[in-house]
Amino acid sequence: MMKFSLDNSNVPVNNLQDTARTLIPYLNRLQQVMEVKNYETDESSLNLPFDENLLAEVISLKERKVNSNLKYVIDVGIGGSNLGTKAIYDATWGAFDALQPARSPKIIFCDTTDPEFIYFLNRFLDNNISTPEEIIINGISKSGTTTETVFNLEMIIKTLFKKSSEYINRLVITTDENSKMWERAHNLNIDMLSIPKIVGGRYSVFSAVGLFPLACGGVDIRTLLDGARSICKQLLQSDVLQISPLMSSVVLYLQNKQGKNIHDSFFFHPELESVGKWYRQLTGESLGKEKDLDGKEVHAGITPTISVGSTDLHSVAQLYLGGPTDKITTFIYSRKPRFDLTLTNFDLEGKNLDKEKIFIELIPSLEGKKTSEIMNAIFEGTKNTYQNHKLPFMEISLEDLSTQSLGEFLQFKMVEMMFLGKLLNINTFDQPNVEDYKIETKKILEQNIAFIE
Amino acid sequence: MMKFSLDNSNVPVNNLQDTARTLIPYLNRLQQVMEVKNYETDESSLNLPFDENLLAEVISLKERKVNSNLKYVIDVGIGGSNLGTKAIYDATWGAFDALQPARSPKIIFCDTTDPEFIYFLNRFLDNNISTPEEIIINGISKSGTTTETVFNLEMIIKTLFKKSSEYINRLVITTDENSKMWERAHNLNIDMLSIPKIVGGRYSVFSAVGLFPLACGGVDIRTLLDGARSICKQLLQSDVLQISPLMSSVVLYLQNKQGKNIHDSFFFHPELESVGKWYRQLTGESLGKEKDLDGKEVHAGITPTISVGSTDLHSVAQLYLGGPTDKITTFIYSRKPRFDLTLTNFDLEGKNLDKEKIFIELIPSLEGKKTSEIMNAIFEGTKNTYQNHKLPFMEISLEDLSTQSLGEFLQFKMVEMMFLGKLLNINTFDQPNVEDYKIETKKILEQNIAFIE
Repeated sequence: MMKFSLDNSNVPVNNLQDTARTLIPYLNRLQQVMEVKNYETDESSLNLPFDENLLAEVISLKERKVNSNLKYVIDVGIGGSNLGTKAIYDATWGAFDALQPARSPKIIFCDTTDPEFIYFLNRFLDNNISTPEEIIINGISKSGTTTETVFNLEMIIKTLFKKSSEYINRLVITTDENSKMWERAHNLNIDMLSIPKIVGGRYSVFSAVGLFPLACGGVDIRTLLDGARSICKQLLQSDVLQISPLMSSVVLYLQNKQGKNIHDSFFFHPELESVGKWYRQLTGESLGKEKDLDGKEVHAGITPTISVGSTDLHSVAQLYLGGPTDKITTFIYSRKPRFDLTLTNFDLEGKNLDKEKIFIELIPSLEGKKTSEIMNAIFEGTKNTYQNHKLPFMEISLEDLSTQSLGEFLQFKMVEMMFLGKLLNINTFDQPNVEDYKIETKKILEQNIAFIE
Repeated sequence: MMKFSLDNSNVPVNNLQDTARTLIPYLNRLQQVMEVKNYETDESSLNLPFDENLLAEVISLKERKVNSNLKYVIDVGIGGSNLGTKAIYDATWGAFDALQPARSPKIIFCDTTDPEFIYFLNRFLDNNISTPEEIIINGISKSGTTTETVFNLEMIIKTLFKKSSEYINRLVITTDENSKMWERAHNLNIDMLSIPKIVGGRYSVFSAVGLFPLACGGVDIRTLLDGARSICKQLLQSDVLQISPLMSSVVLYLQNKQGKNIHDSFFFHPELESVGKWYRQLTGESLGKEKDLDGKEVHAGITPTISVGSTDLHSVAQLYLGGPTDKITTFIYSRKPRFDLTLTNFDLEGKNLDKEKIFIELIPSLEGKKTSEIMNAIFEGTKNTYQNHKLPFMEISLEDLSTQSLGEFLQFKMVEMMFLGKLLNINTFDQPNVEDYKIETKKILEQNIAFIE
């Protein structure tokens, strides 16, 4: 189980406790949502990790589609349709895919309509896929009319259809029931998975949106859901001070009121960067609101930034330590990597090791150290420095980097966000301004406006 | 040549002009630096793109090391030692490496001591490298004693030494002349390249730090430098209002004074994300300062964020449009991708195309569109929406995504930063607080403190 600490949040304990207690009625509401177990309220995503029907449906379709020749799962979706999947896949395998050319299946994510990426992706499929068994294409669009997803999906299908029309059997569509895409897929006899209407993209990682491609990509979705459930179960207790995602929201809220308009999630594992990007959407869309629930213009919101240790210590540490005091930080770290090497005694294949030293004499204290020991030292050194500079931070210590721990973390953050929206008195579940640019884009696409430089 | 627009910066023209004119003395100083052509002043990085000796040295070493069997260049460096290289490589090839398995040579970046990444990297080298010719290892550390770089370099060397001690001939060290690493490499007869002492990491992309690995990785460094020079040459004119990086700094400065503490660089090309990460260091380390040049405690700094279109419209657009008005944005886009496909008529290999439509009927206006036309529409739609919301932005239109254009962009940003530091009255070239966490880390490493959960 993860550990959460707010010892360095620099908020007086009385404030923390008083604010936390204002959340008791909302906690009771979440408890009710979990008791009723349906998908009819904004917070219903809390029920996804417990949904046995959903799990059975996903596993059953996965078993029909996955075979020993499967090489690639193409995840075609954008925003809430792919960020959670990518978060978990990258943390588990994706960050090392370039270094494991022979491992399969791999998930390839296709989100935006970048001309260069789309060109290389289609050329890659054309050259590297020889039978339908080698590929699964999962098109994911909650609305069913996402411009990028419809365009990219059509492009990929056409590339594969040049080989054979049988590739249509390798396509799975995940969308809201009765969306236009749903109807079209139904008419074409394409396999489908649905998303509960009330669950928005950014809360949908534990629905079919995330579970199906992850299962196909070899991620253990059962332990992922175990992790998520362990956080949901925290909500069943009555002492708000013991509910860590709730306390995290209280710190973020109080620090935001004190002028911290940036929340830096500082991951000391590069493979968790995509987890940060998932959280960026969760924060950005949930909290960035023109008006509060009383209709007052508030322009609420906290800007999420992602830092990666130790890389970004060599990039933005100077800003964080010396610059404006406009940030609240959450450090995320696990002391238990799945793999670890020792410098002077590592031995990948049982061979005798060369005892020669090349550069290690430049920093003698590195000798005999494990990679994790170096990272531990940098992590502790960084926290000490934040303390010395009186910079506020929270800390999440993941038990390890397993799928279970990832499930815990993502669920922690979704629950944190629900409480934080409540404290800010805004609608945590809508995204009214996203339509603004979509309307402008649609106008341009339909009018066939040409742009000349 | 790139185009720069501040038409939507929402700053009164008088303010812009008055502030720009205060930079005339500093512009004159930059002109002097470029006239003297040495490496003795803080701004000397301006002379790198014109340095024929440097170019000749890099090309000569590259020609000795690169051969037709070369598969991988391992770039071992962190922060200023690799961010510029990665920016240009990823924009040119790296973002598509997973989709071009057969293309070589590829650059693999090894920066932090992530236990999992280091494990997979060493296993990969152990399994996939069979002769010294297939690899070049470039270890880069300005100080020569960067913890992560020394550790990772030693680890990689040992892995390769298990195969043969001849791999030492495939190692190139880039460091300050007479650093401890320089002396050690000299004693071991390892090939070396130096960095001018005065040029800090974040301004070093056009030194051997960036040029050597990029040249080995197949990037055309001559046109890269051409692009950089075209920006430097802008500095030779006397009308400050015509110098675009100077005007960009003026907008950032004036908007920062009005409370915009975040500068979002919004790239509408995912392959430029690493360019954004390079700029993040440039801004973070250059501007994030506790004290100004008069010793006054100011906590100066602008927090750089990177957004990627259209991906992040589905992530943080709601925050940007509806949330706090704490951001100034720079949009970066080119209308000329190197590759482009048309939806209903794309034909990768001269085959007749399947005319079947699958999902395109869901959005009929997509039919017959090029990928770039979709992106153009989203880009223009986004800008219109920013205008409607009165959100301030600047725009950089890259001529194309060539190496030349990348050289222009990076040099533009380094010059912008010099002017911006001047306006903020801070030392743009030091990074005093970075030492803080390094000292703490060193204490822990040397004391062999064990951490027990």
